[in-house]
Amino acid sequence: MKYSKLFGKTIKESPKDEVSTNAKLLLRGGFIDKLMSGSYTLLPLGYRVKEKIEQIIREEMNKTGAEEVLMPLLHPKNIWNETGRWESAKEVMYQFKKDDKDYALSFTHEEIVMDLVRKHLSSYKDFPVKIYHFSTKFRSELRAKSGILRGREFLMKDLYSLHETEEDLDKYYWEVSDAYLKIFKRIGFDVKIVEAGGGVFTKNITHEYQVLSDSGEDTIYYCEKCEFAQNDEITEVKEADKCPKCKSLIRVGKAIEAGNIFRFGTYYSEKMNASYTDKSGEKKFPYFGSYGIGITRLIGIAVELFNDDKGIIWPKEIAPYQAHLVGLNKKADEVYQKLLDEGIEVLYDDREGVSAGQKFADCDLIGISVRLVVSDKTDNMTEWKKRTSKDSELITIEETKRRLLK
Amino acid sequence: MKYSKLFGKTIKESPKDEVSTNAKLLLRGGFIDKLMSGSYTLLPLGYRVKEKIEQIIREEMNKTGAEEVLMPLLHPKNIWNETGRWESAKEVMYQFKKDDKDYALSFTHEEIVMDLVRKHLSSYKDFPVKIYHFSTKFRSELRAKSGILRGREFLMKDLYSLHETEEDLDKYYWEVSDAYLKIFKRIGFDVKIVEAGGGVFTKNITHEYQVLSDSGEDTIYYCEKCEFAQNDEITEVKEADKCPKCKSLIRVGKAIEAGNIFRFGTYYSEKMNASYTDKSGEKKFPYFGSYGIGITRLIGIAVELFNDDKGIIWPKEIAPYQAHLVGLNKKADEVYQKLLDEGIEVLYDDREGVSAGQKFADCDLIGISVRLVVSDKTDNMTEWKKRTSKDSELITIEETKRRLLK
Repeated sequence: MKYSKLFGKTIKESPKDEVSTNAKLLLRGGFIDKLMSGSYTLLPLGYRVKEKIEQIIREEMNKTGAEEVLMPLLHPKNIWNETGRWESAKEVMYQFKKDDKDYALSFTHEEIVMDLVRKHLSSYKDFPVKIYHFSTKFRSELRAKSGILRGREFLMKDLYSLHETEEDLDKYYWEVSDAYLKIFKRIGFDVKIVEAGGGVFTKNITHEYQVLSDSGEDTIYYCEKCEFAQNDEITEVKEADKCPKCKSLIRVGKAIEAGNIFRFGTYYSEKMNASYTDKSGEKKFPYFGSYGIGITRLIGIAVELFNDDKGIIWPKEIAPYQAHLVGLNKKADEVYQKLLDEGIEVLYDDREGVSAGQKFADCDLIGISVRLVVSDKTDNMTEWKKRTSKDSELITIEETKRRLLK
Repeated sequence: MKYSKLFGKTIKESPKDEVSTNAKLLLRGGFIDKLMSGSYTLLPLGYRVKEKIEQIIREEMNKTGAEEVLMPLLHPKNIWNETGRWESAKEVMYQFKKDDKDYALSFTHEEIVMDLVRKHLSSYKDFPVKIYHFSTKFRSELRAKSGILRGREFLMKDLYSLHETEEDLDKYYWEVSDAYLKIFKRIGFDVKIVEAGGGVFTKNITHEYQVLSDSGEDTIYYCEKCEFAQNDEITEVKEADKCPKCKSLIRVGKAIEAGNIFRFGTYYSEKMNASYTDKSGEKKFPYFGSYGIGITRLIGIAVELFNDDKGIIWPKEIAPYQAHLVGLNKKADEVYQKLLDEGIEVLYDDREGVSAGQKFADCDLIGISVRLVVSDKTDNMTEWKKRTSKDSELITIEETKRRLLK
C-alpha cells in the first residue's frame, strides 16, 4: 500500500477529548476515527489489525470444532422476555419501539442462540452444538472514556456451546480456555485466568482472561507464584495475604479483561424450553456455555501494553503490514515492487515533499514491526531496523525478502 | 466438513410463514434461520456463501483502488440532522432515545462518511477518497415478505468516493459500474444497467443493476436489442414502444435490484461543510458518489434465479463447498481425506442410518455444483455428477481431484 494513497494519515496533535493511551495513539496513527463518545470507525490501517486478530481467533475456534455463523443484531422483545433479561439488563441494553414493535440491540446473544438451537434440536445425536460469530455488540455506557477498550458499540467474537451432560460442557469449557490461551499467546499477550462473578449473565463462577495494565478498569488479586487469581468482586484474599493454594504472596494489580467464559448449566435451556429427547426417550435440557473475546478491545489492549514515547509497537502477528518501507529516493519504487511480487505486505511511504525526519516519526508512530529504508546512502542495499531496536543494519534485498518470508 | 457435525441440517417441510422461493429453499436447505420477520441468521452453510460473495466483491473493489474500513452502526442524531434526513428518512430509519441522547441505526452511511472525511481533508492532494465497508443496514419494513431479498436487517457492501471535479467523479462512477458488471458476471448473474430515480438519496438520475425475475419487486422497461433500460418510476416509454435509442421493441419485466450507484455532486459536501483548499488556495466542495450491493440480497437472488423442483442450484463461484460427497460405505472416509489433503472444500455426508435416497435428496436441495458418490458399486472409482446434469460418470480419484483443482 502506498502511504500517499492511504485514507487516514497520521495526526500531529493529540486529540483533546481523549484521555486513554490507546485512543490517543490509534487516532494519531490513523487507525481509527471517532464518530461519537464510545464509537469509532476502523480506518484502513485499523481494519487490517482487526482482520489479523479475527483470523487468529477463527483458526483456533475452528480447531475446537466450532462453526462460524452470523446472527442478527436487532432482536424482538419477546425472546429477551423469556429469561427476564429485557428487564434485568435494561440499563445496558438499547431498547426501543418502532411501528408498535419493541426491539433491543444485541448486547450479547445467549437468548438468540437458544432460540435458534431449540428450533433445530431433536435428538441427543445433535450434540454438541458449537457455534460462533464475529459481530457487533451495543452496550449503553454513560462514561465511555477508555477509548476502544470500552465502547457503546464494539466488535466481539462470541462462541456458544450446548451439551448433553455437565461433564461434556466442562470438558469443552476448558478446551476453549486452552484455545484462548493459544490466541493470546499468538497475539503476544501475557494473560492470567481469573475467577470472577457473572454479572447479568450467571450466578456461577466464571473465568476472565486478564492482562495486567495500569490502564485497566478491573482489580485482580493473584499469587506471585502459582496460577491462583481472582477478581475483586468475588475474592476474599487481600494484598500480602498468603495464597490459599501455595502459600506464596498475594499481589494486587489493575488489569484489562481480554476475554471471558461462562457455564450456565441448564438455566437458559430450561427458561427457554429448549429440550431434546435422550437415548432412553426422556425429555432433557442441554448444558449451555458462552465464550467471548472483544475484538476491538484487543486492539486497544495491544496499544496499551506495547508503546513508547514515539508511538505504537505492534506485536508482529497483528501489525497491519509486515514491513514499513520508508522511501527517500526513486529506487524505493523498485524495492516496493520486488517485495509485493513475493506477496509481502508492505506499507510504502512514497510521499514526495515530506522530510525524512517526518517519515521516520510517522513510521515509529504507526508502529509496524520492521522498518526498511531505501535512500541514496543505502545504495543497492536496504536498511533494516526493528521497531523495538535502536540498531539498524544494511542488508541485500534478497536477505530482506528472506527475513520477511520466514 | 462432515455433514453429521454440521449445525443446520435440511428440513423436510416448507416453512408455513414464508412465501418467497428464496426463503423457503434457504430455510429447508439449512442455510438460514428466521429470528423474526425480515431478520435471519446465516447458518454455517449460508455463512460460507456470504463469504464467497464478499471475497469476489472485495477483489473487484480493491482493483478500483478502494480501501476497506468499518464504520459504526449506531449514529448520533446531530449528524443526520445536518442534511435533514433525520426527518426526511424517518420512516425507514430506526430512531430512538437512550439516556437523553438521540440515536439512529445505519440505514445507509453517506452522512457518516462525510463526517469522517471532512475531519481528514485538508488539501486537493487528498483526493480521490475511495472507501468501502461490508456492514449491517437496518431499514424498517412493515411487510417483509420477500425472504432475504428485503430485510429489516441485512448486509451491504457500500462504497463512497470523493473527487475534486465532476469529471473525476463521473470517471470513477463508470469504473465502479464496470467493477459491478465483473462482480455479477463472476457470480453468474445476467444484469441490466437501469436508469432510475434516487429515492431518499438524490434527485439525480441513478443506475441500478437489475436481474430479470418474476419474483422481483421492481418493474423495468428495456430494449430487446440495445442496452436502454429504465425503472418504471422515471420512464416515459411503454411496453411495445420503439426504443428511443435504437428503434427496436421495448419490453417490460419484473426485476430484482442487485446493486445501485449514485452521483450526488456537491450536495452532501455543501450541506455538511466538508470543504478543502484547491491548488489556487480557494475553498472548494468535493464531488461525492456512493455505490451499494446488497450481500444477503445477492444470496436471495441466486436462489430465485437458480433452482428446480429438487432445490437450489448454486453458481459454482458462490457455492458453499466445491463438492458434496455422498458416502454410502466406509471407503468414503478415505476419499474425503484425500480431497481435504488437496485443499478441496468438501461437504461430506457421512451420516449413518440415513438412506441413500435421503442423502441424494438433501444433496439436490443444498445444491452444491458437483455431487460425488462413493458406494460399494463405485469400487475404487468415484461417481461424478453435476447438479445441472442428469448424467453421472465413474472417474478415478485422481481425475476427481484434477477436475476440482482446475
